[in-house]
Amino acid sequence: MERFRDGAGYGPAVIARADGASLAAVKGASAVLIRSIGTDSHRFAHTGQMRYRPDIVKIAAAALSNPDADQIDRMLKRGPVRLALDIQTTAETGTSYNVIAEVTGSERPDEYIIIGGHLDSWDLGTGAVDDGAGVALTAAAADLIRQHARPRRSIRVVFFGAEEQGLTGARAYAAAHEDNIENLIVGAESDFGAGPVWALASWTGQSALPAIDAMMQVMSPLGIVRHDKPAYGGPDVGQLRLKGMPVMDLKQDGTDYFDLHHTPDDTLDKVTKEHMRQNLAAWVTFASIAANWPGSFAQD
Amino acid sequence: MERFRDGAGYGPAVIARADGASLAAVKGASAVLIRSIGTDSHRFAHTGQMRYRPDIVKIAAAALSNPDADQIDRMLKRGPVRLALDIQTTAETGTSYNVIAEVTGSERPDEYIIIGGHLDSWDLGTGAVDDGAGVALTAAAADLIRQHARPRRSIRVVFFGAEEQGLTGARAYAAAHEDNIENLIVGAESDFGAGPVWALASWTGQSALPAIDAMMQVMSPLGIVRHDKPAYGGPDVGQLRLKGMPVMDLKQDGTDYFDLHHTPDDTLDKVTKEHMRQNLAAWVTFASIAANWPGSFAQD
Repeated sequence: MERFRDGAGYGPAVIARADGASLAAVKGASAVLIRSIGTDSHRFAHTGQMRYRPDIVKIAAAALSNPDADQIDRMLKRGPVRLALDIQTTAETGTSYNVIAEVTGSERPDEYIIIGGHLDSWDLGTGAVDDGAGVALTAAAADLIRQHARPRRSIRVVFFGAEEQGLTGARAYAAAHEDNIENLIVGAESDFGAGPVWALASWTGQSALPAIDAMMQVMSPLGIVRHDKPAYGGPDVGQLRLKGMPVMDLKQDGTDYFDLHHTPDDTLDKVTKEHMRQNLAAWVTFASIAANWPGSFAQD
Repeated sequence: MERFRDGAGYGPAVIARADGASLAAVKGASAVLIRSIGTDSHRFAHTGQMRYRPDIVKIAAAALSNPDADQIDRMLKRGPVRLALDIQTTAETGTSYNVIAEVTGSERPDEYIIIGGHLDSWDLGTGAVDDGAGVALTAAAADLIRQHARPRRSIRVVFFGAEEQGLTGARAYAAAHEDNIENLIVGAESDFGAGPVWALASWTGQSALPAIDAMMQVMSPLGIVRHDKPAYGGPDVGQLRLKGMPVMDLKQDGTDYFDLHHTPDDTLDKVTKEHMRQNLAAWVTFASIAANWPGSFAQD
C-alpha cells in the first residue's frame, strides 16, 4: 500500500480486508489470507474491520504481516504452498458509551460547536494514535478555552464509543440529535493520528467565510493552508453531517499513519509534543472562533 | 540505546541483558525484566544471549520492547507497579555443524583464505540480516571467483554453526586448526547485517601493505575508506585471530542493525540489492587479491 499524506492509499486497499472473505467464498475458497492493509515493514498483522456479505458462506479470514506475505510470495514462485490456519475468535458483545463534556456558552448556551474523537481503539496497541491523540487534543482545546474566556456558544466535546465496530456511537448520537440538528452549529473531529495539521477544509455556507478567514489568519503561521476540497467531518462527526450539520476538517499529515494504525505499534512513543502543540493551537483556534462568531455556518 | 554506524552502543548496553539476572539476584531480586537492548521502537522484545554467573541463584529474566518499557516507566512515575511473569523456556540441546566449501587453489592449494559467516540465527526472525546476508555474500564471492579465474591459493568458505550460543562452531574450528594456523593466510567474516561496506581494516604484517593497497584501489570507488583501527576478525573468524591468523574487516554501516538484529523483523525485505552488490564487489576484491597475492599477510 502506497503512502500518501491524506491516506489516499487506504480506501482502495482496504477492500481486500473488508470484503475479501465474501469475494473469495464466491469463488470457492475455504479460507482467505491477505497481505496486511498497512504501510509498515514489521512482523505485525494489520487488523481492522471486515464484513461478511449476506447469503454468502462465511469463511475464515486472516491477515499476514507484509514481510510474511513477501515470504509466501517467494515460496509460491518455487511451487505450491500449503497453509494451516489456526484462528481463535471471540463473539462477545458489550455496551459502549459516548462520553460527553461541555463548556456552556455565555450568550447562546443552546447552540453547540461539536468537537471530539473516539474512545475505543483496536486492541493490539494502546490506541495512542487511533484515537488517543484526537481525544486528548479536543479535550485539551475545550479545557484551554474554558480556562481563558468563556465562549458565547457552547462547546461540546464528544468522545464517541464503538467507532471501530462501525461508527456505532456516532450513529446513535446523530439519530438522537437529528430533530434539533440546527442547534449544532458546526462540528469537527480529530481522528487521523498525531501528525501536524496541514490544511483546513470546510463544508459550510458562504456566510461563514469571514469566520474561516479569521481561523486561517491564526492557522497560517502554524503551516496550515486552506484545503481545496469540501470537508467531510471524519467518520464519527460525518454522521452528523449526513443529518445536515456543517463540518470542518483539520487535516493532519498521515504519511506514517498506516504504519501504526491498528497495529501493536500504536503506542504513546509515536506521539510527539511538537505535533500535539501545533494540533492544539489549531483546535483552540477553530473551536473558539466558531463559538464566538455571531453568524451562521449553515448551508445557504 | 544510541545508534552508531559501527554499533558502538551495543557493547555497553548489552551488559544489562548478559549479566542483568545475576547482578539483580545478588541484590535480592526474584526476577529481572529489562528494556530491550535494541534501537527500534516496535512492540518486539529484542532477544539474545544471557549468562548466569556461577554460585549466584538463577532468577527468571526477560526483556520488554522499548514502547512497553516506556509505558512501565510512565506507570512507575504514578506509583508502584506489580508485574506477573509467565516465562516458558526450553532446555533442549542439539548438534550443530560448520559447513565448509572450497575453491581449490591452482598453485598453493594448502594455503587458505578464510571467508564466511554463521548459519544459525536467533529464532524470532528468519535471520536474513544476522547472518543470511553474510553467508550469501561470502558464498557468492567464492562462486564468482571460481567461475572467472581459479585463484593461486585456496579460498575456504566457512559457515559457522551455533554462533549465537557462544561461538561454539568457531571455537571448534579454531581448535581444530591451531596446529597448522600458518596455512590460514588471512581471514575475514561478514556478520554485521546487510548495510554497505564503508571501511577496510587490517591486522596483518607490514609486508601485506601492497596487497591491501591493491584492494583499496578497487574498493575506493565503492565508497570504502581505509579504517584507522586494527581489524578484529568478527566474532567467529576472530577465534582464528586469537590463534594467530591475520584478519581483515570489511566494516559495514550498521546504523539500523540493532533495529533488526535478534527481532522478528530480521527478514529478507530489509536486505537491498544495491547494498548486497556493493558488498559482493568488496568481498570478491578482498578474496581474489588475497588468494592471488604471492606474499605473506603474517605479522612481522
